[in-house]
Amino acid sequence: MAQKPTIPKGTRDFSQAETARRTHIFDTCRAVFNLYGYAAIETPAMENLSTLMGKYGEEGDKLLFKIMNSGEKAADPPERGLRYDLTVPFARYVVQHQSEIVFPFKRHQIQPVWRADRPQKGRYREFIQCDVDVIGSTSLACEVELIQIVAEVFRRLGVGVVLKLNNRKILAGIAEVIGHPDRLTDITVAIDKLDKIGIEAVREELAGKGIGTEKLEPVLALEGSFADKLDAIEKMFSASETGFAGVGEMREVLSMVGELSLDLDIELDLSLARGLNYYTGTIFEVKARDWAIGSICGGGRYDDLTGIFGMSGVSGVGISFGADRIYDVMEGLGLFPQAATGGVRVMFANFGGECMLQAMRLVSELRSSGIAAELYPDPAKMKRQMEYANRRGVLFVAIVGEDELAAGTVTVKNMVTGEQQTITSDEIRNTSFN
Amino acid sequence: MAQKPTIPKGTRDFSQAETARRTHIFDTCRAVFNLYGYAAIETPAMENLSTLMGKYGEEGDKLLFKIMNSGEKAADPPERGLRYDLTVPFARYVVQHQSEIVFPFKRHQIQPVWRADRPQKGRYREFIQCDVDVIGSTSLACEVELIQIVAEVFRRLGVGVVLKLNNRKILAGIAEVIGHPDRLTDITVAIDKLDKIGIEAVREELAGKGIGTEKLEPVLALEGSFADKLDAIEKMFSASETGFAGVGEMREVLSMVGELSLDLDIELDLSLARGLNYYTGTIFEVKARDWAIGSICGGGRYDDLTGIFGMSGVSGVGISFGADRIYDVMEGLGLFPQAATGGVRVMFANFGGECMLQAMRLVSELRSSGIAAELYPDPAKMKRQMEYANRRGVLFVAIVGEDELAAGTVTVKNMVTGEQQTITSDEIRNTSFN
Repeated sequence: MAQKPTIPKGTRDFSQAETARRTHIFDTCRAVFNLYGYAAIETPAMENLSTLMGKYGEEGDKLLFKIMNSGEKAADPPERGLRYDLTVPFARYVVQHQSEIVFPFKRHQIQPVWRADRPQKGRYREFIQCDVDVIGSTSLACEVELIQIVAEVFRRLGVGVVLKLNNRKILAGIAEVIGHPDRLTDITVAIDKLDKIGIEAVREELAGKGIGTEKLEPVLALEGSFADKLDAIEKMFSASETGFAGVGEMREVLSMVGELSLDLDIELDLSLARGLNYYTGTIFEVKARDWAIGSICGGGRYDDLTGIFGMSGVSGVGISFGADRIYDVMEGLGLFPQAATGGVRVMFANFGGECMLQAMRLVSELRSSGIAAELYPDPAKMKRQMEYANRRGVLFVAIVGEDELAAGTVTVKNMVTGEQQTITSDEIRNTSFN
Repeated sequence: MAQKPTIPKGTRDFSQAETARRTHIFDTCRAVFNLYGYAAIETPAMENLSTLMGKYGEEGDKLLFKIMNSGEKAADPPERGLRYDLTVPFARYVVQHQSEIVFPFKRHQIQPVWRADRPQKGRYREFIQCDVDVIGSTSLACEVELIQIVAEVFRRLGVGVVLKLNNRKILAGIAEVIGHPDRLTDITVAIDKLDKIGIEAVREELAGKGIGTEKLEPVLALEGSFADKLDAIEKMFSASETGFAGVGEMREVLSMVGELSLDLDIELDLSLARGLNYYTGTIFEVKARDWAIGSICGGGRYDDLTGIFGMSGVSGVGISFGADRIYDVMEGLGLFPQAATGGVRVMFANFGGECMLQAMRLVSELRSSGIAAELYPDPAKMKRQMEYANRRGVLFVAIVGEDELAAGTVTVKNMVTGEQQTITSDEIRNTSFN
């Protein structure tokens, strides 16, 4: 036999069980997003390279998958690449379709992206991003709505989470107050690693760049409630208008959220920086409470996403759900519902002839009642049919043999308990097979 | 302002309304496929070129989108390409995962494919295929199940259709009977065009290849019911075992379908050939009854799909739903449900301050009842908010101004009828907004 075929490094096949579980996550996000008025758009997998290049830094440019030209243009430089994220295509979409769009524009997008990264555990060359954004409003009610979406998605998924909040203006205020207003990026890059490398390494890194941390460390070490921390930091900001504004925004978001009696743990995390440079206001990050893994969701407010395509001054805010990590958390904690297996509840065994025809009719009736059911296609040996039912994880096997056919009955075997009972064909129509 | 960005030729952006309608089609297919036990798998967008090359003929090889290597391998010939259809990746998947798969293996797959075809009306470089197959069984019960799926999908979508059936063995029998058993491909290619070019052009084409059509034409001209046609053609097949077997298969499929009282028009179409060479038994094609467009769904039985990857003798049968054409039919006939717009039912106007907080609370309650609702994010001028609601196609605008806040009421405006009424906050919780 020929060698078994394979798939490219860093890509994945998803089995039926895996696809059903992933779909459960995406369907949950989708349903919540739609409920909140963020309907989906879709953009093509390929974008013009001119749309993608220069948007992700030098490193990002190298990680773009480029498509070879075909036909006459084969020798020319490539013109198209696979999308690297959903943010740049979203910005491109908004600018391209600005005349048809109603602003504020709320949308979600759940589509794959591709990165020519070195594959490693948890890092793939193709993965699905799940983004929800509103663009064209500076109202902090948008932040509140996204926080509600976070709470509702994870409530529906059954994942306990903590939402960490911060604000880029507060970080800018801190940079001002510690005397390095122009070094915000260095400071946020270092602070962003606090969780992973600890305060001493952060101190060292900043010292190496000539930034003292005496004034910074007390801020990072602040304890207490959200409000206590805000009070403490606000005192520092008498000299920083930006920082003061950041605290004000946080207070307003917090006050509105407080009115909604959300079932969500929210913390102020002054060390939360998030790498992406385009954030300018509130930043979010979600961690699973009972499973150690990086952030499973994050985002923030940006003031000029569409500026790269010539449409400036449009503020927006968005978050992205990390489906692969959410999957790992749910798998690890056993949170996937039984129904998300992609299997059928009832399999009818196949005894051929008239028995098969009767089974076909009954299978159709179960399906009409919304019960996923099937008929084993061949009148194979019983052992083989039962093995199939077992491996497929079917919950019930229904049998219509000669005896049952004559008596107008069906024998139903519960594959979990082994229990077996004979009921009439009419009764089967009213059985829920749970 | 910079030039507006664009997308590559032959690709498409989908707006929220379009995405909602497309999703309605895919969700309907998905729900029916799952009900019948054909759960989804997913395969990567990129496959190794060795998997794809040589599978679609010389012309197909040229239409593959190839991905440039990155890093050190940049100068080497490309190793990966975008998938061209879902059939070859499915065969690859079955062979690669054969030890984990339970046969007969039923699966569906709804994913995009890419073809470097010259773009033209109705032909795109990226489009979604929607395939459902069962592999590992020769039972004609599989054909019947797929016919049920066709009936159920189009019943749910509200599209009136005709299912045309034929069998490759009948075509082979005809080739034998007219004295050209070795010219099956020439004959099927010619009769496949009968619909488009007419009998005279078919006669000419075959004559040019030395094939007389005296014996063929009466077959193509057969009139009458499905059973009548089968009777007539069976008489011809005393000299063709293959043709005789084909008629037998058709009779069996038809008899099983007859037991199920399906609400579906089924015709025997002896001129139905379907281009793809890998079909060996039953072939299907679905046309919309009330809208002129090519076939909107089709497929057939194949005996050796996985042979290309070294796993031979595995028979299967599958069909593919043409989502873009189904979309055009539904759009043309106005069949999309009102709900498939991607919009929200209720928008609360924003009056800021305490009014906004009350609106936020009420919006949350509507969402808890499953009603898609939103709050306009900014306390903008009423005119602007109403314009937004209008352009967005919102059905109801709810108003909580100072008066309503004080009285504990909400004013609700029906945006279709213009009707306006004031109800209490409690009543709004029990309003369905239809």
